[in-house]
Amino acid sequence: MKIHDWFDGPYPARVRIALAEKNMLSRIEFVSVDLWAGEHKTPEFLAINYSGTLPVLELNDGTLIAECTAITQYLDALDDSPTLTGQTPVEKGLIHMMTKRAEIEFLDAVSVYFHHATPGLGPHVELYQNAEWGNRMRDKAIRGMRYFDGLLKRQPFVAGGTFSMADITVLAGMIFASLVKLDVPDDCEALREWHARMQQRPSVQEWRAMVARGAPQR
Amino acid sequence: MKIHDWFDGPYPARVRIALAEKNMLSRIEFVSVDLWAGEHKTPEFLAINYSGTLPVLELNDGTLIAECTAITQYLDALDDSPTLTGQTPVEKGLIHMMTKRAEIEFLDAVSVYFHHATPGLGPHVELYQNAEWGNRMRDKAIRGMRYFDGLLKRQPFVAGGTFSMADITVLAGMIFASLVKLDVPDDCEALREWHARMQQRPSVQEWRAMVARGAPQR
Repeated sequence: MKIHDWFDGPYPARVRIALAEKNMLSRIEFVSVDLWAGEHKTPEFLAINYSGTLPVLELNDGTLIAECTAITQYLDALDDSPTLTGQTPVEKGLIHMMTKRAEIEFLDAVSVYFHHATPGLGPHVELYQNAEWGNRMRDKAIRGMRYFDGLLKRQPFVAGGTFSMADITVLAGMIFASLVKLDVPDDCEALREWHARMQQRPSVQEWRAMVARGAPQR
Repeated sequence: MKIHDWFDGPYPARVRIALAEKNMLSRIEFVSVDLWAGEHKTPEFLAINYSGTLPVLELNDGTLIAECTAITQYLDALDDSPTLTGQTPVEKGLIHMMTKRAEIEFLDAVSVYFHHATPGLGPHVELYQNAEWGNRMRDKAIRGMRYFDGLLKRQPFVAGGTFSMADITVLAGMIFASLVKLDVPDDCEALREWHARMQQRPSVQEWRAMVARGAPQR
């Protein structure tokens, strides 16, 4: 299997951490798509993923699966030990709900802030910006942090009692927030404690090691 | 099980049509949340769903599952005949991908257009509007229609050879587009043919009959 992605992107991190959790990294060939050069917006890449986003999974028969949740769902269906998307109907429902909530209330909001209210990937990539909308999404992301903080006061993981795709999605939000220097409010102690706990997971350490190795050579 | 929703909302349609496909409508008690009165933005409803969106599934033990994809995933895990989210790993991956793509490229874009560049639900509900962003999303939605038209030229259903959650999501986009008078471009013949075919499904006819019965009485 191939993954088209960029080594330190927050969305690519979702799938790389999922692969590390499932001990599948060695089965993947990574194909670099340079975000900073705008390679994800070229006609060639848009033919791979109409939405122009990373990552994309390419199976050996050429089948293309974009979108982090879809890729994680595919990987989990291949081999469910450990499961990241739940075993029972209620687990599946709650994990999908909290994953989507982590996207709309936090990760995606940080992304819109980055692309619209900061220089983003640079003027050659950010051909349209709406700063007012971007700043509005920054405020939404900070409210999102407070929401997840409240949630994590009551339960150890984002979707309840077990680590899941939803934790990885909030983690990607934290990765993106750190890149754009959006600080976690001081009083979000449960979110900070959870985040420190996540740093201890071998999958997250493996992801950090991949990032530390830097951009791939051409 | 209860569903908190509004009888003719496009997102509620996603779950109502899924329930009809699975022959589960008789197991549901519907609880009305009046979108036009802004009941989905009250503190009482935000305690049920932080994101302030419909629909929300409430299980008999009080567990709350928001987000259409999550609810559909839960229902499919309860009883997978017929499946709406796929049986094999590849089917699951492709259906989740196309569902998300239908959201970001079409349904959600129409929704943002409605809430930001038209009067939306009225000034008592639409407390902030960004018309430029809304109009940008209208243009994105029309491009989305052309994308799905191209796709449906090559395959009978949105995620391939079988009806799925992804078809229901594009259908919700068509329902919302019709409400806001966003026409399908004349040359989108494959999208129009697919849409006409969808109207023949008993689940869609059942949904239309529910809408025709009008708003529930208090």
